Amino acid sequence: MKHLDHIGIAVADLEKAINTYKKLLESPCYKRETVEQQKVETAFFRAGESKIELLGATAPDSVIDKFVSKQGEGMHHVAFEVDDIYAEMKRLEEEGFTLLSEEPRPGADDKLVVFVHPKDNCGVLIELCQSTGK
Amino acid sequence: MKHLDHIGIAVADLEKAINTYKKLLESPCYKRETVEQQKVETAFFRAGESKIELLGATAPDSVIDKFVSKQGEGMHHVAFEVDDIYAEMKRLEEEGFTLLSEEPRPGADDKLVVFVHPKDNCGVLIELCQSTGK
Repeated sequence: MKHLDHIGIAVADLEKAINTYKKLLESPCYKRETVEQQKVETAFFRAGESKIELLGATAPDSVIDKFVSKQGEGMHHVAFEVDDIYAEMKRLEEEGFTLLSEEPRPGADDKLVVFVHPKDNCGVLIELCQSTGK
Repeated sequence: MKHLDHIGIAVADLEKAINTYKKLLESPCYKRETVEQQKVETAFFRAGESKIELLGATAPDSVIDKFVSKQGEGMHHVAFEVDDIYAEMKRLEEEGFTLLSEEPRPGADDKLVVFVHPKDNCGVLIELCQSTGK
C-alpha cells in the first residue's frame, strides 16, 4: 500500500456537511463529483497528502442512504492508494481477505476501486484505489 | 489543520488486530505504547504521511472496551495534526464546535490531544493533536 489516500464519511445532507467540514478543516471543498453507478455524490477536502471524501446519497436505494438509515452518519470507509490494484487484490486474497467484488470498479476521483470486507479488518471497510492516470 | 495524522481503530484483541493490519498494509507495527490515563494500548502502522493506530483496552472500564462492547470493533476517531492546539481549540469553539475537554491531554505518540464531539462532525469523533516535540 502506498499511502492513506482518503477517508469516506457517509452524510445525510451533503450541503450541510460540506459547510461543517469547510469550517472544521479551514479549507474549501475543492471538488464535487457524482458517481452514477454508486448513486452517490462526493465532495473532497484536502488534509495534507490525504483527503476527506464526504458521501451523500443521490437515490433512496444508494448504499449510502442504506448506511445512514441503518446506523446514522459517520465513517464509511478508509482508502489506501496502490500501484497495481490487480496485484494487490491477488495478494490479499492469498492472505485470506475477502474482496467485495471480483473486478475493480470505477470510483470517484478517476480511480479504480475495490473493497475489502470489514469482517476481515476489525470492522473497518477498506478500499483499495488506483489512479487511472486521467 | 496541517494534515490527517492518523485514524484510530478500536479493536477487541490487539495481538490479532496487529497481525491483520501487518498483512493488510504489508508493513510492520513500528511502535506500541500504553496510555495509562486512557487505559488503552496502542499499536502504530505507517501509511504514507498518515498512520493507523489500533486501540485495545487494558481495563474493562476503558472507553475502548465500552466502545467495542456497545458497537463492536471499528473506526474510533480521525486525528488531524495542528501547529497550535490552543489556538485551534479557540477557533473551533468560536465556530460552534463542542470540545470534549477544556484542556488538551497527553495522548500516545508524544502528543497533546483534544477531541471534538461527533455530533458536530457528521458522526465522526475528531481528534486534534499537536506534537510535544519529544
